[in-house]
Amino acid sequence: MYKATIIIKLKKGVLNPEGRTVLRALNFLGYNEVKDAKTFKCIELMVEGDDEHKVMERVEEMCKKLLANPVIHDYDIKIEKM
Amino acid sequence: MYKATIIIKLKKGVLNPEGRTVLRALNFLGYNEVKDAKTFKCIELMVEGDDEHKVMERVEEMCKKLLANPVIHDYDIKIEKM
Repeated sequence: MYKATIIIKLKKGVLNPEGRTVLRALNFLGYNEVKDAKTFKCIELMVEGDDEHKVMERVEEMCKKLLANPVIHDYDIKIEKM
Repeated sequence: MYKATIIIKLKKGVLNPEGRTVLRALNFLGYNEVKDAKTFKCIELMVEGDDEHKVMERVEEMCKKLLANPVIHDYDIKIEKM
């Protein structure tokens, strides 16, 4: 069993309205030392398998097919044996 | 300037419908080796300041006031000097 952690960030240049809202709200609350805020999404999958390399390949396929949108997202996969 | 990365997870026992949907969708697409899926949210803040300890304190305050809901969320903060 492997744990795959997938971090999905917006590509550089793609607007992050959620981050902007967080930034504005924090500044509004008096946290003026916050200069930038970005949000991103993480997905943790428990994947059955013996071969780390094969698991990695399958998880990459999942990202391309379902989890990330290659037009606007960059993703990063970490695999860890459980 | 410090970079604060905040990881906001649902507490144990709190349902994660988004994760369940991802799991179902992956299984439906033929990825039957995926046994569990959890999603969580990350926020990256750029915070001005000189004292790491003080920055940490302020970011914790932000989490309690705005970023996380202490009833259902656990959060984890990492501070890194830029």
